[in-house]
Amino acid sequence: MTLGVGVIGTGMIGQDHVRRLTQAVSGAEVVAVSDANEQVAKEVASGLPDATVHPFGEELIADERVDAVLVCSWGPTHEAYVVAAIGAGKPVFCEKPLATTREACRNIIDAEVAHGSRLVQVGFMRRYDESYRALKDVIDSGAIGAPLLYFSGHRNASVPEHYTKDMAIVDTAVHDFDVTRWLLGEELSSIQVLAAKPNSLGGDLQDPLLMILRSQSGVLVTVETSVNIRYGYDIRGEVVGETGTAALADRGPVVVRSAHQVAVSVPEDWRQRFLTAYDVEFQEWVDAVTAGAGATGPSAWDGYAAQVVCDAGVQALSSGERVAIDLGEQPALYR
Amino acid sequence: MTLGVGVIGTGMIGQDHVRRLTQAVSGAEVVAVSDANEQVAKEVASGLPDATVHPFGEELIADERVDAVLVCSWGPTHEAYVVAAIGAGKPVFCEKPLATTREACRNIIDAEVAHGSRLVQVGFMRRYDESYRALKDVIDSGAIGAPLLYFSGHRNASVPEHYTKDMAIVDTAVHDFDVTRWLLGEELSSIQVLAAKPNSLGGDLQDPLLMILRSQSGVLVTVETSVNIRYGYDIRGEVVGETGTAALADRGPVVVRSAHQVAVSVPEDWRQRFLTAYDVEFQEWVDAVTAGAGATGPSAWDGYAAQVVCDAGVQALSSGERVAIDLGEQPALYR
Amino acid sequence: MTLGVGVIGTGMIGQDHVRRLTQAVSGAEVVAVSDANEQVAKEVASGLPDATVHPFGEELIADERVDAVLVCSWGPTHEAYVVAAIGAGKPVFCEKPLATTREACRNIIDAEVAHGSRLVQVGFMRRYDESYRALKDVIDSGAIGAPLLYFSGHRNASVPEHYTKDMAIVDTAVHDFDVTRWLLGEELSSIQVLAAKPNSLGGDLQDPLLMILRSQSGVLVTVETSVNIRYGYDIRGEVVGETGTAALADRGPVVVRSAHQVAVSVPEDWRQRFLTAYDVEFQEWVDAVTAGAGATGPSAWDGYAAQVVCDAGVQALSSGERVAIDLGEQPALYR
Amino acid sequence: MTLGVGVIGTGMIGQDHVRRLTQAVSGAEVVAVSDANEQVAKEVASGLPDATVHPFGEELIADERVDAVLVCSWGPTHEAYVVAAIGAGKPVFCEKPLATTREACRNIIDAEVAHGSRLVQVGFMRRYDESYRALKDVIDSGAIGAPLLYFSGHRNASVPEHYTKDMAIVDTAVHDFDVTRWLLGEELSSIQVLAAKPNSLGGDLQDPLLMILRSQSGVLVTVETSVNIRYGYDIRGEVVGETGTAALADRGPVVVRSAHQVAVSVPEDWRQRFLTAYDVEFQEWVDAVTAGAGATGPSAWDGYAAQVVCDAGVQALSSGERVAIDLGEQPALYR
Repeated sequence: MTLGVGVIGTGMIGQDHVRRLTQAVSGAEVVAVSDANEQVAKEVASGLPDATVHPFGEELIADERVDAVLVCSWGPTHEAYVVAAIGAGKPVFCEKPLATTREACRNIIDAEVAHGSRLVQVGFMRRYDESYRALKDVIDSGAIGAPLLYFSGHRNASVPEHYTKDMAIVDTAVHDFDVTRWLLGEELSSIQVLAAKPNSLGGDLQDPLLMILRSQSGVLVTVETSVNIRYGYDIRGEVVGETGTAALADRGPVVVRSAHQVAVSVPEDWRQRFLTAYDVEFQEWVDAVTAGAGATGPSAWDGYAAQVVCDAGVQALSSGERVAIDLGEQPALYR
Repeated sequence: MTLGVGVIGTGMIGQDHVRRLTQAVSGAEVVAVSDANEQVAKEVASGLPDATVHPFGEELIADERVDAVLVCSWGPTHEAYVVAAIGAGKPVFCEKPLATTREACRNIIDAEVAHGSRLVQVGFMRRYDESYRALKDVIDSGAIGAPLLYFSGHRNASVPEHYTKDMAIVDTAVHDFDVTRWLLGEELSSIQVLAAKPNSLGGDLQDPLLMILRSQSGVLVTVETSVNIRYGYDIRGEVVGETGTAALADRGPVVVRSAHQVAVSVPEDWRQRFLTAYDVEFQEWVDAVTAGAGATGPSAWDGYAAQVVCDAGVQALSSGERVAIDLGEQPALYR
Repeated sequence: MTLGVGVIGTGMIGQDHVRRLTQAVSGAEVVAVSDANEQVAKEVASGLPDATVHPFGEELIADERVDAVLVCSWGPTHEAYVVAAIGAGKPVFCEKPLATTREACRNIIDAEVAHGSRLVQVGFMRRYDESYRALKDVIDSGAIGAPLLYFSGHRNASVPEHYTKDMAIVDTAVHDFDVTRWLLGEELSSIQVLAAKPNSLGGDLQDPLLMILRSQSGVLVTVETSVNIRYGYDIRGEVVGETGTAALADRGPVVVRSAHQVAVSVPEDWRQRFLTAYDVEFQEWVDAVTAGAGATGPSAWDGYAAQVVCDAGVQALSSGERVAIDLGEQPALYR
Repeated sequence: MTLGVGVIGTGMIGQDHVRRLTQAVSGAEVVAVSDANEQVAKEVASGLPDATVHPFGEELIADERVDAVLVCSWGPTHEAYVVAAIGAGKPVFCEKPLATTREACRNIIDAEVAHGSRLVQVGFMRRYDESYRALKDVIDSGAIGAPLLYFSGHRNASVPEHYTKDMAIVDTAVHDFDVTRWLLGEELSSIQVLAAKPNSLGGDLQDPLLMILRSQSGVLVTVETSVNIRYGYDIRGEVVGETGTAALADRGPVVVRSAHQVAVSVPEDWRQRFLTAYDVEFQEWVDAVTAGAGATGPSAWDGYAAQVVCDAGVQALSSGERVAIDLGEQPALYR
């Protein structure tokens, strides 16, 4: 009953997931790996009990020991691997983004719809975070009435040199877009992107950004990305409902009184903040796939929708105008 | 050395201030009152040791025992009384709004500039609140770097029947506008007003509203007004700076653990929330006026600027467009 | 209707109260001062509009302009001044301690009982603090059931050189004793004092101390005094009831996110922590006295009871044993 | 590389750990079960892929597929099973208590010392809780100076009918005793137990209790047990150091503003509160045993020491006197 997982892409995030599947998750074994840099793949395999190294992802997908595929490779390669896994009828977990263009995402959807049942899951780990889940529970319970406004704050201490201005949308805010859709249970219909007074620590970046989105039912959403804010990795979220609000709590484990302050700590980075969410995400995926469900988490449609919002966001950043978001018809598979 | 204060307008807020000047503030005495409803003025006077009732505000201003004037009458009457007090060379504290039109505010400014020194103070009490002052101190200290974003949340449990949609701007958000200008130390340059999905508890009102303003240096400001949110009167504020953020704290006096919750209370209404701020505001005004300064708090210019932002906000709400804010030249008196 | 107050003792705390009565409280005027150091008294008087300097407290008490007396002199002199004020039939506010021995306190009680109505109020300012009042309200509301345990934490950043080990009880914990009696609405019946591992920053002091008291109905009370804890002046309190608990909240005015922390500030010292409580205390005293009540706040009995607990505490610290607290019969005047 | 675990005792807690080892922990398989009620053991085994049911624990221990033993049976049976496992040279995880008497614990220690290396781990799960670990990190970092006082609060919403007064010590406070020893890194040397005014919801129980312990270096420790407090399962802890304090944080996942409150939730029970701690505890145990370490967590000595403190506590509750705690010599194996 151990799920054989093949991992395509064994860079930083891939290695982290290999470790997770091997040491933290019950019921899975990494049986095959593949990477554009074969040397890296071999090193990763050498730390595993019995993993085959495949030169190409397509071979890995075809490997009989591979029950399910995990795609952690470079974004532009995702489409081909995911479509191939669908073609092989194998469940596939794809790190975000599902694909880097709207069309590529659509191709994946078409393939999965043609297959006739869900096989694809996208790595939006926030949906597995205890605080986000509690936030959704409060909304769904009706305890604060219907949601009317949502504020989502995404703050990084700093970003690497190669971070470009569009990445604030496609790499950073994409998580906010997905979690907003999930929390509200509906699609986003428009986006406007405003650049604030630039942070002098952010070089030439337009940072911070304030994005204003509207959901189909009219909920107003503001997304703040502050990616050079130094003080830590801080994920904020507050839903304003008809009769109350609910917000992600600060969850530092201890309250320290020292030096004229009462303080709790802020996470250093996303790994620390979402460590447990990743573990839960993979345990639930392994459990679902083992139980015969192709996928129960974020779907190809979710990956596609997030990508379409990102595309609109990039256009809105460039034009300064409000951009409508049009997802087209949702296939019955995803309803 | 007791300051003789004459109060024009002895309705709800006027009576509250009469009580404040009589029972909570040191160094002042209410020596004269006036109200459109003379009966009410007489009742208020009957509770005071030695207060003259004047049928008209102009007579009250001329009363020799009146060292300083407090205007709490109906908004449209403010201009005439304030200008008259300036004409008499007497310090005048005017409850907000300074006046109900841009032109009326400008007339007051012209009169004060002609007088040559400050006599007018406007009742923006938030500037005297301990939390707002601490927030400004953090900003000014540089501890979080230059401010880049500011979020201001203004939530009322409910509003009276006569509350109209423009009042969310001219009556409610006007406080957010003023305190934003004061915290940032600069003027606002544009405003956009978005209506969220309407709160079903708010009748025909467009509630909540999300206003997006920009300051002259580029700081992005969002103002949320939620005026039927039931759970309490909750004033929120968070400045996002280059290296950190600072926010108004929840200040419930006790932490109660009961019924599976750890909770602090939220104020019932603005009186409870800003009680101490009002006391401090009037004590500082009395002290300043007694010391010979005509006024040291929010100026006629501040009242004017807030009114111009309100006008632009009303226009923006109606048009759905971003509206530029043009204050014109600031007289040297206010620099 | 202005209350003429005579101040005996114009050292640090006396000067602070003179400023308070003059600049912060409504309805009072300092009309006379006296101090063992006459030069200091003269300097204080020189800053007041019309205050007489008396060489002796007894003369000040006899001064016809003095409607009420404020005693801020050295503790051992309190008894004589308070008894003299009672003898003159004048309301007297006495800073803590009421007197420095049980017998001296008893003499004051006898004098007041002989007078037949309350004239004496003792300066236990915590009873006027918003958080303590809210704590008492929660207890009295029954929201957490009957109180069963109470923890009172009293932390000072540091203490002056002349601070001796008994002062942790008679100077520091005395406030905890009084506020415990007031919160619980009953007397304390025994005390045990345990010295913790000594703080190396406290020199030869036995610091911190943990005192264990029991109320007459059986509530267990622990009082922690940590008087060299460096991080600030921090007053803690938590009542454990049958169905919940209530605690004094941390009330830093702003929440600052910086340097990997979310923090609120801790007060620097007692002045900052209880500034508003002192103002309220004196406003209520002035109002009560002006209205003809001799005193409505902490009574001579409260001052006596606190002193008896202190005496028992000192004995318990010395002996290491539990010491019973016996107040004797409470005169009807104080019931 | 999968660790074969045999589980003795498949009642409530045993079943929970079987589920944990099977579904949440990586690298382990439950290969054998045994229970006094064989029917229950069979039902548990029927839900597992390949587990043998043994009528007696001793047989289970001898089973060749059993690499390590988990003892979850009735307390009085622990000694025999643990000693048998040591005899078989197999790592054994024993739920608390290690054994129900001091002598029984000592026998286990003797057996393990005779074996010559650690095989026994005791189920003190708090040491694996994120908040407790962070608390220990703060202490060990020196950020608050040497610990001088520790307050440990242990609150249950309610307890079952069969809960007796000694259980507040041996079942409830035992966790506080262990975690105190671990946090402070030293042994406890005396205990006094005081009964507060009884909670009327606690029937005939002496509840709450306040225990006062002293560590060998002089740290004063207070342990509050409130086991009928209704509002939730609330584990509190605060270390007072020389320059600051550190406390377990409230960790409700969301902050809800509704009905005039700002609130976070309190856990319902110990399962909710320590769910993750149990998972971490078993993952670390499995990892350590698999890596060849017999045990790295709480040792037989820790189990023994906790039991000795419990014995002294029961005696102190009965006598009302302070009782010294004498552990005797610590074998080198545990240093």
